[in-house]
This record gives sequence, C-alpha cells and structure tokens, in this order.
Amino acid sequence: MSACLFCRIVKKEIPANALYEDESVIAFNDVNPQAPVHVLVIPKEHVARVMALSSEDLSLVSSIHRAVQELAKKLGVRESGFRLVVNNGPDAGQAVDHLHYHLLAGRKFGWPPG
Amino acid sequence: MSACLFCRIVKKEIPANALYEDESVIAFNDVNPQAPVHVLVIPKEHVARVMALSSEDLSLVSSIHRAVQELAKKLGVRESGFRLVVNNGPDAGQAVDHLHYHLLAGRKFGWPPG
Repeated sequence: MSACLFCRIVKKEIPANALYEDESVIAFNDVNPQAPVHVLVIPKEHVARVMALSSEDLSLVSSIHRAVQELAKKLGVRESGFRLVVNNGPDAGQAVDHLHYHLLAGRKFGWPPG
Repeated sequence: MSACLFCRIVKKEIPANALYEDESVIAFNDVNPQAPVHVLVIPKEHVARVMALSSEDLSLVSSIHRAVQELAKKLGVRESGFRLVVNNGPDAGQAVDHLHYHLLAGRKFGWPPG
C-alpha cells in the first residue's frame, strides 16, 4: 500500500470523485476549498514536485494543462477565468509531496497570491 | 511594432534583463515584485492564456517548466521552495494578455493564494 495520499487516490484505495481522468492525469475536488471551484489536477505517476520532474516527465505538465482546459470548460469558468497555483517545497506550503496543480475559480482573486 | 508588451520584450524593443533565455522561453523580473524573488517566465510565441494553448502549443508548457527548474537553481531557491502562479482571464486578474508564469520565492507564502 502506497504511503502517498494522492497515489492512493490514483489507485482508488481512497475514494475521490474524479472530475477528469485520462491515462496520465486525474482531477478531484480539494477537501479544503478556497474558492467556489477548487480542483486538484495531478499526474498519476508519483512525482514529488516541479523540481523532481525529469526531462522525460516534463510532458506530464502538458497533459496536466490539457486537463485544466477541459476542466475549465466543464466547470463553466472558461470565460470568467481561473488561477492556477503550484506549491513547490516548504516556503510555498506544499502540503502533499505529490505534484498537484490547484485550479481555483468562481470568485475574484487578490494580489499578491498569498 | 507589436501591441503586446511581452512580445516587445521578446523582440528586445523594450529592454528587460533576461534571467533565462532559450529558443522558446524568456524570463525577467516582475516590475512590481510581490516577494524577494518574483520572475515572469513566458513563451516567446504569443499565446494569450492557458485557454488559448493549442494542442501544438502545449509543449511550450514543458519548456516553461524546464526554465523554472533552471531559474530555481540559479536563484538559490531550489530547496527553500517557490510558488508558481498563472492568472488566466478576468477573475484571476490577468494583467497582460500574453501567457506568463509567476515564479515567487524568498519568503513564506500564505493560503489561500489571493
């Protein structure tokens, strides 16, 4: 059994309502939402953070962005817009050591971003 | 002459101290920094936002992430970490209609991200 929370979601050991899924990416709601729309988009492969992406892994980022485009359409925020946030390491407050993109939408976002 | 501010930077019509540059990506400091490190990483090709990335353009996102990895090493924030933010459209407060990734580091970041 994997020790990584998100790997366990990928393996369906922990149930999560998938809002999007393809061969390399899965997306589900954040359990502690910070906006009306707050979805986590993750690679199924375990990659800890941006800095851990190998040259071969970098294409996963393209797949994640394709998923984000699909989600924005599906969730009706294509025109209103969204903020995409990736926390990498301690200063950013990365909470789970499995790369994840926060897709936030449904309200106006302030600046600075935290 | 391009009407897009970032395209003018790409074409060197407006000077910007490039912190990173390759064939498809350029990075420079944000003129209104929100953290000790606040770099904008952009594709040289004009793409307005995440939603405007075509299937062919999606590889640009991988190139941007490779640049982010190089910048994090160069700027000494590889271990301390960083937040990566992309504003897409009006709700997010996207200020320039040319896709740009904010690389923020050098302090602790709060939650929610704006």
